[in-house]
Amino acid sequence: MTTLGFDDLKTRLRLPDPGRAMHDVIRELYPICRSITGNGVRQTLKVVGRHVPLEIHEVPSGTRVLDWVVPKEWNIRDAWVKDPSGAKIINFQSSNLHVVGYSVPVRERMPLTELKKHLFSLPDKPDWIAYRNTFYRDDWGFCVSHRQLQSLADGQYEVFIDSAHTDGSLTYGEALIAGRSSREILLCCHVCHPSLANDNLSGISLLALLGRYLVELSPHFSYRLLFLPVTIGAITWLARNESALSKIEHGVVVTLVGDAGGITYKRSRRGDAAIDRAFAHVLKHAGEHQIVDFTPYGYDERQFCSPGFDLPVGCLMRTPHGEFPEYHTSADDLAFVKPEALADSLAKLLAVLDVLENNRSYLSENPKGEPQLGRRGIYRAMAERADGSAREMALLWVLNQSDGKHSLLDIADRSGYPFESIREAASLLQEHKLLRELEEGAS
Amino acid sequence: MTTLGFDDLKTRLRLPDPGRAMHDVIRELYPICRSITGNGVRQTLKVVGRHVPLEIHEVPSGTRVLDWVVPKEWNIRDAWVKDPSGAKIINFQSSNLHVVGYSVPVRERMPLTELKKHLFSLPDKPDWIAYRNTFYRDDWGFCVSHRQLQSLADGQYEVFIDSAHTDGSLTYGEALIAGRSSREILLCCHVCHPSLANDNLSGISLLALLGRYLVELSPHFSYRLLFLPVTIGAITWLARNESALSKIEHGVVVTLVGDAGGITYKRSRRGDAAIDRAFAHVLKHAGEHQIVDFTPYGYDERQFCSPGFDLPVGCLMRTPHGEFPEYHTSADDLAFVKPEALADSLAKLLAVLDVLENNRSYLSENPKGEPQLGRRGIYRAMAERADGSAREMALLWVLNQSDGKHSLLDIADRSGYPFESIREAASLLQEHKLLRELEEGAS
Amino acid sequence: MTTLGFDDLKTRLRLPDPGRAMHDVIRELYPICRSITGNGVRQTLKVVGRHVPLEIHEVPSGTRVLDWVVPKEWNIRDAWVKDPSGAKIINFQSSNLHVVGYSVPVRERMPLTELKKHLFSLPDKPDWIAYRNTFYRDDWGFCVSHRQLQSLADGQYEVFIDSAHTDGSLTYGEALIAGRSSREILLCCHVCHPSLANDNLSGISLLALLGRYLVELSPHFSYRLLFLPVTIGAITWLARNESALSKIEHGVVVTLVGDAGGITYKRSRRGDAAIDRAFAHVLKHAGEHQIVDFTPYGYDERQFCSPGFDLPVGCLMRTPHGEFPEYHTSADDLAFVKPEALADSLAKLLAVLDVLENNRSYLSENPKGEPQLGRRGIYRAMAERADGSAREMALLWVLNQSDGKHSLLDIADRSGYPFESIREAASLLQEHKLLRELEEGAS
Repeated sequence: MTTLGFDDLKTRLRLPDPGRAMHDVIRELYPICRSITGNGVRQTLKVVGRHVPLEIHEVPSGTRVLDWVVPKEWNIRDAWVKDPSGAKIINFQSSNLHVVGYSVPVRERMPLTELKKHLFSLPDKPDWIAYRNTFYRDDWGFCVSHRQLQSLADGQYEVFIDSAHTDGSLTYGEALIAGRSSREILLCCHVCHPSLANDNLSGISLLALLGRYLVELSPHFSYRLLFLPVTIGAITWLARNESALSKIEHGVVVTLVGDAGGITYKRSRRGDAAIDRAFAHVLKHAGEHQIVDFTPYGYDERQFCSPGFDLPVGCLMRTPHGEFPEYHTSADDLAFVKPEALADSLAKLLAVLDVLENNRSYLSENPKGEPQLGRRGIYRAMAERADGSAREMALLWVLNQSDGKHSLLDIADRSGYPFESIREAASLLQEHKLLRELEEGAS
Repeated sequence: MTTLGFDDLKTRLRLPDPGRAMHDVIRELYPICRSITGNGVRQTLKVVGRHVPLEIHEVPSGTRVLDWVVPKEWNIRDAWVKDPSGAKIINFQSSNLHVVGYSVPVRERMPLTELKKHLFSLPDKPDWIAYRNTFYRDDWGFCVSHRQLQSLADGQYEVFIDSAHTDGSLTYGEALIAGRSSREILLCCHVCHPSLANDNLSGISLLALLGRYLVELSPHFSYRLLFLPVTIGAITWLARNESALSKIEHGVVVTLVGDAGGITYKRSRRGDAAIDRAFAHVLKHAGEHQIVDFTPYGYDERQFCSPGFDLPVGCLMRTPHGEFPEYHTSADDLAFVKPEALADSLAKLLAVLDVLENNRSYLSENPKGEPQLGRRGIYRAMAERADGSAREMALLWVLNQSDGKHSLLDIADRSGYPFESIREAASLLQEHKLLRELEEGAS
Repeated sequence: MTTLGFDDLKTRLRLPDPGRAMHDVIRELYPICRSITGNGVRQTLKVVGRHVPLEIHEVPSGTRVLDWVVPKEWNIRDAWVKDPSGAKIINFQSSNLHVVGYSVPVRERMPLTELKKHLFSLPDKPDWIAYRNTFYRDDWGFCVSHRQLQSLADGQYEVFIDSAHTDGSLTYGEALIAGRSSREILLCCHVCHPSLANDNLSGISLLALLGRYLVELSPHFSYRLLFLPVTIGAITWLARNESALSKIEHGVVVTLVGDAGGITYKRSRRGDAAIDRAFAHVLKHAGEHQIVDFTPYGYDERQFCSPGFDLPVGCLMRTPHGEFPEYHTSADDLAFVKPEALADSLAKLLAVLDVLENNRSYLSENPKGEPQLGRRGIYRAMAERADGSAREMALLWVLNQSDGKHSLLDIADRSGYPFESIREAASLLQEHKLLRELEEGAS
């Protein structure tokens, strides 16, 4: 059996502070101007590829994918606005959030009143710059702080956006880390937002580090890590992999995992999939958290959980999108994501993966009455440990419930003991030939 | 699709104040002396027949109906008690509640002590007259206020009841308003209580007005409205229509719908019938209310929900019988029933009927991934409305859940959105050829 | 039908105070030195045999039973410790708790430091003597109060234990009280603890008195009463009766039923067995109590509920083991068990047995509409009783639910009325030929 856990990750990767390591990845990715297509995604995946062996896919503009079409590729070199005095008052080079994503190219002079139709601000957050885009619609614009917007004097402004929409491709990254089984766990994040740290550099950095760890293990499941532009990326991947979806046993979309809020798990559409039960179990034993029901909104769980696929894919977050004021603004920056929060998110996900990896069903070899544990020296072994009484209870629970109808997770849930204790009890009983693993389970 | 609703009713009937209109019907019916048989019922049904096309059934006394026998017909012309001075101190002409229903005829002189065996009062409500009857038992009596009872002086009293028990018939009214489907919704009220306004002139007036409205529509379901003497009327109708009961898809007994209390819905015996779910949904989105479990007591839901029929029939009330002090007394009068309460009861029932009429199941034509709503201009349509975000969510819910296993009501319940929003979303998606109606559903 | 109840027990046994009678049995059994084998068990069963016809089984040491082996028989005649002055400071004759159960024989002189390795006390309960044993492990020891332990002066002590481990047998008692059906109710208690009153002389005395009562009845079920040494006794009985276990319909382990705390029922492993539902029903109508889920710890329900047997056996207690400070100490004495608590425990168990004995399913002979109860004089009978309205409701519930799918216990639970009322209503309806008993039920 393979045990996955945060401490084991630290040891295997010789990484004393994984939270700091994730934050370093975020810092490196932060300046890049990403969108749903273009060189920003390619640069991002190059960084990720240093951590986990990544296959890069390029899907040509115009390709039909399910109900959608891969859009033209968008790239931008520069953009600015000069005021009547000729001073650059808005500058893409100082923050890529200033330019509305997918803006068409423009080079024009116009009065303030005309310019204002293309300027966007957040009146209730006057110092922050919003994140906006104009996907699937030809338009252009700039995002500015409300304070700056209000300070603009009348006059002629010069506007410049050096962008291009070309027949290129949509780019995404995929890593398959083979396990002993061909059954897969899907882990997915989005790679299309520009300089926003929590949304979703936090998810990218978490999967990059997790991937590094998984290649060091020989896990039971195969792990498929997807780094996708949101919506169109998931649609594209699903369209190209439809015949292989039946291999997916469990899945998690990872996003917004770096803020200081508590953990949130959003259930899959099924609501009672094994991934939902594993998260519920782990979080129940792990302090403050919330579990929310599936809704057809949010991130790419929307696509994985569409009715024609209905995959068992949930979503791991800390504070959900829209529930923190920094969401989709320049305040979602490097200071907003915390190494400790990143580490905690990774630790929780590892605990869940450990449940999925090790959840088995057993048959008691001695189902009639209790076996005599004392004769086998098992009670003595218990008595010597401080937590002996809890360990004895875990043994008795596993023996009592191992009738082939209850998995270790079932037993953990019924008994109230953490999965870890139940799994250790099962191992000890198996050593003593008191349990036999059921073949239908994972091997 | 047909939409049923209170505002639509007002428009179609050109009736600005339906609550007032119902109260007017109650005022007209109030003086009539009704019982389970006799001319009072016939007069009442004549008034109802001015609103809704009514078939009047006369079932001869002595007819065997299930375990029961139709009783003799009872009619009363006059009744009074004269005190020792010859003054009429109790007079049927001033309130028909004074005479115990089904009293045998009597003309006698007797001392006060003898008379008192036949006088009934309510000591804890000393100014009110009780409603009593002596169905299925030969006896006679008068109901008086406790204050009057205590004021009576000794002496010889003269008692007169000019009533008759004859071989006649039991009368009930029935209206079938044909819909596009032969499947029926049963709506039932009782017509056997004398001058009591809430119990049940409120129910009669509500069904009369609802019937007027239904004939203006071309509804999906056929509607069967029953105006029955309580218990024996329902038993009689069931006995005569046993072979047609399988057509009943949903049913509601309507009673006590005019008092100022909040709405109460009593579930059918099944507890989870569509009618139960529809009421739960509508009331959840409609403020203060209570939902109570089925009990084999109350009104004619007792008969419809007997184990040999077990029809999906619930009961709509405001304050339940026995839970308001005016119940079965002279204080249940014209002032006790409020036009606004009558209107609110009707509005709630219409909202429930609207759910039942329009509850369909659909299949997404694009179940794999989300369809691209933007390309179809649907997002733009949403964005222009103040409630655009809620409308967008309703669309996404309908798309996500339309796998053939979930009706619109299921989707409304899971999403938390009102049925109305979900139905509108489904209509819009159907227009855009994104949904296909399932044939098993209503057409 | 046979009605079981506490008042009936008093009458049939001509026993005005059954709680006192149980306490008397406890007083008689208290001084005996019991262990899992030996003469103490035999003496105990002899006393029980005066109340209920008991078959005594002797199973030779060394017999293989399931995963276990019957141990050597242990008997003890005397034991003491003398201090350096030669005074007997610890004496088995004054309390059999002083000697650790199953101690090997010893006659030695040793210094206090050596002796202390064999002395056990309870520092947080300094005046009480603990109960300990050394089953399945060769060792010896004495239990003393902590106060005494601390007062011991240095010097040479003389230790004497006159015990013997011999090839003998394990003893248990069994009473089968035949009912009309061969289906059995198993009632079990343990008989292996020395001078502890609540654990478990209370259980022994309760089953003794209950057995005396059951032989006076002609119950529906057959009752099997087991008086077993804990664990090894149950294992032994199960091994010897494996082929007959399918006859067991319900079962209860009875223990700790004499303390002043409220009733506790611990569910069977199945959790929703009829015995679990019967206890839930009775306790719900009987004041303060707690119902706890099954855990594979406690008394012999552990063995009966092992996965290879999974018998529907729960456990009746008052305060659970380990949750009262007197547990397994000399303070669990004759004063700790209360006649009223014993009586209450017996009364609750009888109420549960009454439910199991009388739980039937019926078919209404008149399922379509309500039958006319008035014509049959049933309403009049109701009206004459103070609780007439509750009785009428019970009748209506039984009529409404008697469709062959609901037992009387189901009806009692749904209606909220006590089983007793529902059963009486069913009897009355059966008298009037309105109900027919279903054959699949008990006859």
